[in-house]
Amino acid sequence: MNEHRIAKDEEFMREAIRLAIESVEKDGGPFGAVIVHDRNIVGRGANCVTAANDPTAHAEIVAIRQACANLDTFLLDDCECYATAEPCPMCLGALYWARIPRVYYGCSSRDAQDIGFDDTRIYRELCIPIPQRDIRMHQMLRKEALSAFRLWREKSDKIPY
Amino acid sequence: MNEHRIAKDEEFMREAIRLAIESVEKDGGPFGAVIVHDRNIVGRGANCVTAANDPTAHAEIVAIRQACANLDTFLLDDCECYATAEPCPMCLGALYWARIPRVYYGCSSRDAQDIGFDDTRIYRELCIPIPQRDIRMHQMLRKEALSAFRLWREKSDKIPY
Repeated sequence: MNEHRIAKDEEFMREAIRLAIESVEKDGGPFGAVIVHDRNIVGRGANCVTAANDPTAHAEIVAIRQACANLDTFLLDDCECYATAEPCPMCLGALYWARIPRVYYGCSSRDAQDIGFDDTRIYRELCIPIPQRDIRMHQMLRKEALSAFRLWREKSDKIPY
Repeated sequence: MNEHRIAKDEEFMREAIRLAIESVEKDGGPFGAVIVHDRNIVGRGANCVTAANDPTAHAEIVAIRQACANLDTFLLDDCECYATAEPCPMCLGALYWARIPRVYYGCSSRDAQDIGFDDTRIYRELCIPIPQRDIRMHQMLRKEALSAFRLWREKSDKIPY
């Protein structure tokens, strides 16, 4: 039974790898991902940042969006993600927001760094205090901005997530 | 001159706040963002996670995607972002990938936590080692996955980013 489970895990990861290779052969980046629900693939993605002019179009994000559209939900808490590389901070954030509890990955962020991708630098940046980051961040108009939060708090028919 | 600059900064932030309030009044979350290029707004976004069934549809992500579509590029290194709240890790990651050098924000992540959003928890999760995270992460088939990276390294006409 466990052997069957591992064989299926490998099948899902190989589909992600196939998507990554196909992506490089066309005009995309070298990353692929699939989202699995009830041991069936419900979302596929490959990195298409440059081809789609969309810096958020990483494989995991594309696959999450497709899975949510297919399952008609914004919560994938009964799904798994298989990604050819360790998710970058943007994609790991997306996996948390989608409530995906389990991620399988192939290459490490260090491997991605070796071929020129910034994942490890962005992880370092996110984990240091705001004033020390390369990106300049300035707080302003907090009191006015809080008005949207107050409205949200008072809204009776909101959908929390 | 500086006063004019600050007045424009406040104008952009107030447009983001307007988007956030409008979003709560309709069916979205309490967050708004605008992307500014040459002191003009080129992208607008509000959180529409539940309405669009898309956990990645945070205000900053929506605004970045719109700005990239409008400017026909995947690099926004000459743009600024004005967001009603401190970007969550997913959105901050997206801002790094888009190479946006400067971000203005209203509420803090702590303010977002106070109305039920998970930003601070996700920041903590991203900054601890993989085995300690709530999300379960398993590495597998690294050697096979590296084949896509090798293809990328050898590709002569690739677009790096």
